[in-house]
Amino acid sequence: MTDLAAIFQNYTKLGNQNINLIGRVRTNRKGKKVSFMVVNDGTIFQDLQVVYKDELSNYENITKARPASIVEISGTLVLTPNKPQPFEIQATQMEILDQAIEEYPLQNKEHTPEFLRELAHLRVRTKTFNAIYRVRSAASFAFHRFFNEQGFVYVQTPILTSNDAEGAGETFVVTTRNDDKYDQDFFGKKAVLTVSGQLHAEAYAQAFRKVYTFGPTFRAEESYTAKHAAEFWMIEPEVAFADLQDNIDLIEAMLKSVTKEVWDVCHTELNFLAQHFDIDLASRLQSLTTKNFALLPYRDAIERLKEAIADGHHFDDENIFFGMDLATEHERFICEVLYNAPTFIVDYPKTIKSFYMKENPDLETVAGVDLLVPGIGELVGGSEREGDYDKLVQRCLEQGIDPKGLDWYLGLRRFGYYKSAGFGLGFERYLMYLTGVTNIRDVLLYPRTPKNLLF
Amino acid sequence: MTDLAAIFQNYTKLGNQNINLIGRVRTNRKGKKVSFMVVNDGTIFQDLQVVYKDELSNYENITKARPASIVEISGTLVLTPNKPQPFEIQATQMEILDQAIEEYPLQNKEHTPEFLRELAHLRVRTKTFNAIYRVRSAASFAFHRFFNEQGFVYVQTPILTSNDAEGAGETFVVTTRNDDKYDQDFFGKKAVLTVSGQLHAEAYAQAFRKVYTFGPTFRAEESYTAKHAAEFWMIEPEVAFADLQDNIDLIEAMLKSVTKEVWDVCHTELNFLAQHFDIDLASRLQSLTTKNFALLPYRDAIERLKEAIADGHHFDDENIFFGMDLATEHERFICEVLYNAPTFIVDYPKTIKSFYMKENPDLETVAGVDLLVPGIGELVGGSEREGDYDKLVQRCLEQGIDPKGLDWYLGLRRFGYYKSAGFGLGFERYLMYLTGVTNIRDVLLYPRTPKNLLF
Repeated sequence: MTDLAAIFQNYTKLGNQNINLIGRVRTNRKGKKVSFMVVNDGTIFQDLQVVYKDELSNYENITKARPASIVEISGTLVLTPNKPQPFEIQATQMEILDQAIEEYPLQNKEHTPEFLRELAHLRVRTKTFNAIYRVRSAASFAFHRFFNEQGFVYVQTPILTSNDAEGAGETFVVTTRNDDKYDQDFFGKKAVLTVSGQLHAEAYAQAFRKVYTFGPTFRAEESYTAKHAAEFWMIEPEVAFADLQDNIDLIEAMLKSVTKEVWDVCHTELNFLAQHFDIDLASRLQSLTTKNFALLPYRDAIERLKEAIADGHHFDDENIFFGMDLATEHERFICEVLYNAPTFIVDYPKTIKSFYMKENPDLETVAGVDLLVPGIGELVGGSEREGDYDKLVQRCLEQGIDPKGLDWYLGLRRFGYYKSAGFGLGFERYLMYLTGVTNIRDVLLYPRTPKNLLF
Repeated sequence: MTDLAAIFQNYTKLGNQNINLIGRVRTNRKGKKVSFMVVNDGTIFQDLQVVYKDELSNYENITKARPASIVEISGTLVLTPNKPQPFEIQATQMEILDQAIEEYPLQNKEHTPEFLRELAHLRVRTKTFNAIYRVRSAASFAFHRFFNEQGFVYVQTPILTSNDAEGAGETFVVTTRNDDKYDQDFFGKKAVLTVSGQLHAEAYAQAFRKVYTFGPTFRAEESYTAKHAAEFWMIEPEVAFADLQDNIDLIEAMLKSVTKEVWDVCHTELNFLAQHFDIDLASRLQSLTTKNFALLPYRDAIERLKEAIADGHHFDDENIFFGMDLATEHERFICEVLYNAPTFIVDYPKTIKSFYMKENPDLETVAGVDLLVPGIGELVGGSEREGDYDKLVQRCLEQGIDPKGLDWYLGLRRFGYYKSAGFGLGFERYLMYLTGVTNIRDVLLYPRTPKNLLF
């Protein structure tokens, strides 16, 4: 028994040879004497076209194989240079190994994304979701390979933490009780699900210089947008002895390298998605991998936005001032209209950024960086970290964070500390950018959102 | 500025050349005219020996650099073929970039593992834990690479699930409330932390044929042993169209390939651990990667244990009967004394195994497999899955599991299903086997156990 991936890799040499294969029926179109079955065995995105004739002793039986059924096929591989698919199998023997029930919910018609989300355990069998999750897997590996080749150590930071003091949003409580007597709880204290592995990773960067996390993170935000999920994966590299510029260079190198690898490995899947959903996909990825990213200080970005309004450009929010959070419409204007390229914004006002970002000499801004990309807005957020213990404690207090809970983290600055910088990439956000999928629920395998926990 | 990894890779060509490097002080031994500093910059396990003399203008200052401080060093690389380390730097210029405080808790003396567990954010700076976490990272990547090369799709199964019906042990509840009104909770129902990604992965194996998970899993067991943690990582491959024998072959191929790669990448770290903690380490790993694994049906294992007792071998539990769970002492006897090799036990009584394991024709046993390894006992557990819908529902009922909550999973058997097999490997259990570390708390970065949630 062979598999479809091996056949596709080698089909030019397999003309007129005998092939034996097990696969799942996608479609089965009955003719009087000649019938056509499309089969896939899961090992490759492409399907196999099978032609079978009434010469088969069990012909009638095979014509009744329903979508999703498992069949075994023996036959001759015939090259078909004039057809859409490069080859087909002319079957000499076929058998239904398992007949799917008639009520199989994914019949051959168009389904809405909403309908398919209720079938998260089955939608991967459709071409679209099959492509998306193949890309997801390839991208995961590409990130791991990139960091491995660059000498990073992979750190699996904890999911359970007692540290909900980062101010990164609402957290889920983890408990074995049904009250709030956390001192009698499993851990003897209140435990929450992590919102970020950054602080834990920073400690390890002090020992390995270059580390990265790649794991699930959680937000208990009652947010029903297409961009938010309660559970999602983050990639958070951290590099000791590195500053903001090193950080910027790493973000650009990482995105270029990973995107190029995914394009190489999954061009069939990405082309399929481009054809069906997002005609700009190829040019967007081409631009990401080849163009130099732009860079603009936040202060200048504010000026550019004001100028744009003066020039007649309309924003929903036209109250532009130093200290504001840029909205997605502003971010997209900057990277789409101003630069038409991925754009780094640096040196944000410290009032709108996290306590751990390094204060700049102007005492107003911090050495933070966001990467804005066309079509999405913010894709990456990072910073050089504050290295001064006293300043860091001060920043905690300013932001209403109790330094006591972060003793261990703050103390890193006293045990030999010379610069550290890192960033966070929401993996699903990146996948949406890569695939053109517009709803985060459709790049997660089993999405978890408010009031929605199926499977 | 270069880094230590690059220097070690290339030192034979760098003799008498000038080197500039930033690193952390491990030790600083003052002499009158000549002093010695051991430095590491995190990029490699090996340390750098720096020799500096009172010719330095700031010599007295440098002699005061405390352990953990960050220093910048310029100097000449000198090959030292007659010393333990292959080269040293004779410093021409040195600077303390950041002086660590005197109270740095990891001074140069032996610390107990218990003491170091309270310093999980710092213990990675010791040679031992540095070695362990380098091995952990290398092993992670080796698993990803193995599965990628074998055509597996990486599936990130959900951490939050409504499915606590698998009977795999106690679960943690995830909530935004402080009562049990889960219908008013974030998800509108009770949510728990996953104990296994297997069921979710099985659905994806039906689409991709070969998939694997690699992510965190959770048990709320009040277990204080050296083998149990509340949060740990699992690797769970699942292959459609595969049976028990395919599963066994995959386990053996995976362990041999990954272990060989880790040995190649981390032989310095593993040799260090062998020298300090586990003199059998090298021979154990050698045996794992080269010896054929043994295989024994459970039924025969019971007979062998009875014979051993009759021959005078002592077990704490000598009540040996078909239907018993093998204790670790029995498992270790089998793989250490009987076979002196990793040993598969297959065809367990169905009463002691999970509902999803395929019933054998004898109606008494299931197509389950455990891999036992010398020194540890059970390392891997897996099975061929029950493919018959009615039998599977029946097995749920027998084990007190409500099939309704697993509708989606059970239904996979009706939508085209022809064999599936998979297994679970506790990643930390494997790391303990690999490194000789005897407490799971010491292979996890920030271990979470009952009443213990630091950082």
